[in-house]
Amino acid sequence: MIRNTTLTVPTRGKGLYPFTRNAEDWLSKQNLTGGLLTAFLQHTSCSLVIQENADPDVTLDLRDFFERLVPEKAAGFRHTAEGPDDMTSHIRSTLTHTSLSIPVISGEMALGTWQGLYVFEHRSRPHQRRVVLQLMGE
Amino acid sequence: MIRNTTLTVPTRGKGLYPFTRNAEDWLSKQNLTGGLLTAFLQHTSCSLVIQENADPDVTLDLRDFFERLVPEKAAGFRHTAEGPDDMTSHIRSTLTHTSLSIPVISGEMALGTWQGLYVFEHRSRPHQRRVVLQLMGE
Amino acid sequence: MIRNTTLTVPTRGKGLYPFTRNAEDWLSKQNLTGGLLTAFLQHTSCSLVIQENADPDVTLDLRDFFERLVPEKAAGFRHTAEGPDDMTSHIRSTLTHTSLSIPVISGEMALGTWQGLYVFEHRSRPHQRRVVLQLMGE
Repeated sequence: MIRNTTLTVPTRGKGLYPFTRNAEDWLSKQNLTGGLLTAFLQHTSCSLVIQENADPDVTLDLRDFFERLVPEKAAGFRHTAEGPDDMTSHIRSTLTHTSLSIPVISGEMALGTWQGLYVFEHRSRPHQRRVVLQLMGE
Repeated sequence: MIRNTTLTVPTRGKGLYPFTRNAEDWLSKQNLTGGLLTAFLQHTSCSLVIQENADPDVTLDLRDFFERLVPEKAAGFRHTAEGPDDMTSHIRSTLTHTSLSIPVISGEMALGTWQGLYVFEHRSRPHQRRVVLQLMGE
Repeated sequence: MIRNTTLTVPTRGKGLYPFTRNAEDWLSKQNLTGGLLTAFLQHTSCSLVIQENADPDVTLDLRDFFERLVPEKAAGFRHTAEGPDDMTSHIRSTLTHTSLSIPVISGEMALGTWQGLYVFEHRSRPHQRRVVLQLMGE
């Protein structure tokens, strides 16, 4: 059986936005016991990551590290028409993930104790980000 | 149902080579309405990325950024027998992706408007790169 | 059909630890001819990569590159309570992979000749790392 939905995750500037609970809520209504959950982000200037969900400082340190790794003040980008945070966003999304693949066992995502799902927003302005969830299983 | 094929993507030096249309062509012949498309690259010195397909400058800026992030002139690589662009290629491929997972809905990849599929070649010489496509669905 | 197992990969400090053979051994007992193998790591301070399995120097150069790319001596992390190698581990895992998706064809992973599966340990102390393997197929 295959089920699909699309979550909309609102973002308000650079940083990590959790959607684990949204995915769990949808998953719990599908009545499938096992299978594979794919989360697919339909954008190229933000990304998906699985990271620690316990200490919010982790997400702030992650955001700041990528600010330094892919600095907006770097010289020489060609693609600048959409602002200084656009080409850096494409690079940061390439360095992280557009899709996540998570086994579902006994009706639940097989996440480790400290793992949470996040949209990593790389742009400064607010956006509505679309995450396609697909569950394939039995 | 499960279908597999292997695309060959010719590359002519460092940069991004699109294969969205090749994947769409194959997909359209499978007569499956829904499922998961996995693209898997059988190499460790190039990679797969999903990135903006509108402005070609994005792919050039991406290529150049990785040239700076993982410089060939970096000191101290042990693995140098295959040339100065080999160990850097392994690192660049590790920082990007060997597989992509894309939901298929109503017979089409659920890509966002600006998303395209690319082989990111990290080596200088021409290569023939093999991308296994697998469609699992109904 | 869906099959799951969990591998435990012991690590002894930073570096890459192969588990290709463990995955092959389990796969060979499932009697499925085709499908998708998902490897999912239940941790946020180590990661999964597919890399060259021929020259062990590649894994050492990879380890050392990430040591320089995400240095422990970088200023200004907030998340420091678990030691200097913890926030860097979260970043290094974000820059690499938590899951791998590998087509299975004719009962075997469709890996390229030189591709191997690795747990990339980012912490200094020994750990027991859990990798969930899921095979979905026919």
